[in-house]
Amino acid sequence: MAHLLSTSCTINVSSGCKPYYIPLNQGSRAFPTSFTLQATKSPFGRLVSDGEKPQNFFTVHATTLPISKEAPAQPSSGSHQTFNEPSKPQRVMVIGGDGYCGWATALHLSNKGYEVAIVDSLVRRLFDHQLGIESLTPIASIHNRLRCWKSLTGKTIELHIGDICDFEFLSETFKSFEPDAVVHFGEQRSAPYSMIDRSRAVFTQNNNVIGTLNVLFAIKEFREQCHLVKLGTMGEYGTPNIDIEEGYITITHNGRTDTLPYPKQASSFYHLSKVHDSNNIAFTCKAWGIRATDLNQGVVYGVKTDETEMHEELCNRLDYDGVFGTALNRFCVQAAVGHPLTVYGKGGQTRGYLDIRDTVQCVELAIANPAQSGEFRVFNQFTEQFSVNELAALVKKAGEKLGLNVESISVPNPRVEAEEHYYNAKHTKLIELGLEPHLLSDSLLDSLLNFAIKFKDRVDTKQIMPSVSWRKMGVKPRTITA
Amino acid sequence: MAHLLSTSCTINVSSGCKPYYIPLNQGSRAFPTSFTLQATKSPFGRLVSDGEKPQNFFTVHATTLPISKEAPAQPSSGSHQTFNEPSKPQRVMVIGGDGYCGWATALHLSNKGYEVAIVDSLVRRLFDHQLGIESLTPIASIHNRLRCWKSLTGKTIELHIGDICDFEFLSETFKSFEPDAVVHFGEQRSAPYSMIDRSRAVFTQNNNVIGTLNVLFAIKEFREQCHLVKLGTMGEYGTPNIDIEEGYITITHNGRTDTLPYPKQASSFYHLSKVHDSNNIAFTCKAWGIRATDLNQGVVYGVKTDETEMHEELCNRLDYDGVFGTALNRFCVQAAVGHPLTVYGKGGQTRGYLDIRDTVQCVELAIANPAQSGEFRVFNQFTEQFSVNELAALVKKAGEKLGLNVESISVPNPRVEAEEHYYNAKHTKLIELGLEPHLLSDSLLDSLLNFAIKFKDRVDTKQIMPSVSWRKMGVKPRTITA
Repeated sequence: MAHLLSTSCTINVSSGCKPYYIPLNQGSRAFPTSFTLQATKSPFGRLVSDGEKPQNFFTVHATTLPISKEAPAQPSSGSHQTFNEPSKPQRVMVIGGDGYCGWATALHLSNKGYEVAIVDSLVRRLFDHQLGIESLTPIASIHNRLRCWKSLTGKTIELHIGDICDFEFLSETFKSFEPDAVVHFGEQRSAPYSMIDRSRAVFTQNNNVIGTLNVLFAIKEFREQCHLVKLGTMGEYGTPNIDIEEGYITITHNGRTDTLPYPKQASSFYHLSKVHDSNNIAFTCKAWGIRATDLNQGVVYGVKTDETEMHEELCNRLDYDGVFGTALNRFCVQAAVGHPLTVYGKGGQTRGYLDIRDTVQCVELAIANPAQSGEFRVFNQFTEQFSVNELAALVKKAGEKLGLNVESISVPNPRVEAEEHYYNAKHTKLIELGLEPHLLSDSLLDSLLNFAIKFKDRVDTKQIMPSVSWRKMGVKPRTITA
Repeated sequence: MAHLLSTSCTINVSSGCKPYYIPLNQGSRAFPTSFTLQATKSPFGRLVSDGEKPQNFFTVHATTLPISKEAPAQPSSGSHQTFNEPSKPQRVMVIGGDGYCGWATALHLSNKGYEVAIVDSLVRRLFDHQLGIESLTPIASIHNRLRCWKSLTGKTIELHIGDICDFEFLSETFKSFEPDAVVHFGEQRSAPYSMIDRSRAVFTQNNNVIGTLNVLFAIKEFREQCHLVKLGTMGEYGTPNIDIEEGYITITHNGRTDTLPYPKQASSFYHLSKVHDSNNIAFTCKAWGIRATDLNQGVVYGVKTDETEMHEELCNRLDYDGVFGTALNRFCVQAAVGHPLTVYGKGGQTRGYLDIRDTVQCVELAIANPAQSGEFRVFNQFTEQFSVNELAALVKKAGEKLGLNVESISVPNPRVEAEEHYYNAKHTKLIELGLEPHLLSDSLLDSLLNFAIKFKDRVDTKQIMPSVSWRKMGVKPRTITA
């Protein structure tokens, strides 16, 4: 097991908050007390730049108040008619709640009246340091984020810092928080990251598979009725030459018929880890009666949600680099700085996409309408399909409206994938539950583009090009030097 | 990563052999020199019995001769017309070559003229110690086994002791032995073992998945043309209500057609680990051009092969306990000692079965007819299908011929599985390559039964009953006490 953080802690940020709109680089020592998290057994020690001391200690400044479950519950601003007890907000644990989708989701659920706890090892921030990359948007520390949220809304989000691969830590969070639902974003989520070298491939599969196994065991042991909402990926399906269904397909073969798990054809060690997770979860639903929803998410774009827009300290991350950046976000940043849009290969790769505002909506719908005991429910979570070439054309058109001269270039495809293929994936189940999609209209693209333009001085163009090759990955640890 | 043995070594047993037919408990110190393997980070330290000191050191007595690749090659006694160079034996690495199927296979391949190296951590023997179980048959140490083989046949089998989860160790074995084919039995292979507790579930998935990932990386890095022959299991498929094909199924859906990986429905953390492996291997075939054969093996029965019969020191293990014992072997032992045959639940569970003599034949056929570069080839490796009730009836009938009074009892099914279901699995590809099955005839059953009777004084009836429940498994480490 990878225990990136062998020591863990549960903290509750103070409600005393600095005034809004203070620049991020001020007031960062507002928390009076401090404690130290020691990182051990990190597989990444070798990745620090030459001449830089290994970062074995992270000092976290925070007020260590006791956790209060009696904190006044905020009335729900949502319209969840399906709660068992509509007047009592449910308790939702968001694993990976400091990440891109996790942060937006944690705030959204808190805003909707759920009692939320974030569980996160913060390793995603460590990846940035190690790879020498950075979010386009400046992001506050998780402690400042939560303090700001409390100050703005009066709502407390619990914070449990630790690694879910450490079962002792995870057990304590379950026993302490007693979740009714767990939203599990807590995985290494980049395909290129998993293809950097052997150690990152092994880390990705170990971290994701064992972390998820631990979550399943924790639910079985401590919260049997807890609903697991697990983020999967549309990439699990690959690009079959038939329609992609939502999790299952009914097959008639040699005169007999059965409904079976939809065949998977993942195309990176990351995507494979998600397939492994799905299989493990499906088994525990059958064997133990776990209730689970697998959200096979498409490529997420955008940065603003209602909640993150409330204050700059709540701002979400936006990745545009070759490792963590996804197609549309990266294209908008490229357009903003006058860099040609980098189309991999022929550009016919078609995928499902969704606005991050729909991510948070989908997760909320899944929680509000839980799976039955023993049910392994699969939703395809995206709103529209585009090919890479179609995305490039949309960005070019929107950029021209803003006076930008946007060009595209084809770069050698670092991945092993079909560049021209059939793609038709079903995605009706979340719509049936009430999802109201934000579509990729021109105006939305303008907004995302304007956002990229706003922060264009922060763009490091060296991060844009793909740096990881599927075919050339080797066993030697790839060190990153300045 | 689980590194059960963080220190590893490569040894070559001496050719000086003690006389045949010396009882196993004599002459066990025939090897003059010794060295020490230190086990670290073992997840099993906690499992030692109360009052017993943790076994952190294993002393291995062996002659540490230099490895000689120039050892005179033995002419092949087989008829492999498909070799690229028929006159030159191929070099085959058998990972897990000290186990039940691995040992029989290593000897068989050596006998057929292949140059063989066994890679094994010997952890299977450790499981026996920890769980307080034992093979029905007395088995010699791997060192004595190999010394005896050398003495009988003049053939050397290299021995590399270490854990394939330790990539440094695995790299050295690849660079030193330079295999043309790798047969990978090196996994935790018991479904009940994987369902004992959380730590064994995590160990099983980590050990199997990461070990296999390491083998794939070693092939890519050091022996790109090496053919991977990976033991999978028919259990990966589960019990679908349609015919089971060999690895792939052609699906016509909404007017379009594609051939896709056959949907998997594994039913233990062990079986799931095999599904994960299959998916990982399939990806590397596509991305890196790995050539691989996945042998989805049925339940293996029997103990004798041509080679293990040559000397009692070559005798294979025969497991009849509730953790590692499989249905038919266990039934024969039960019949021999007058214990009722323990049918789980209704007994309608149908599976594919094969004689261990066919296991070694199938592996040889796969090696002699390698997959193409980039090909992920799947064979279903079994010869006949039986339900548990059918097996019980066969054992009863055969037992009666030998004057045994054989009864069956239904015990509560410890597993979560369908007890009555459709089952029709294809298994023609190995037949097409030349497999000549040993069928479960009455005579064979007599022979297996007679074998069980021969060793019936060694039977510990306390080991027979199922001790692991799929539904009741928990997070607490299950300690085994005397």
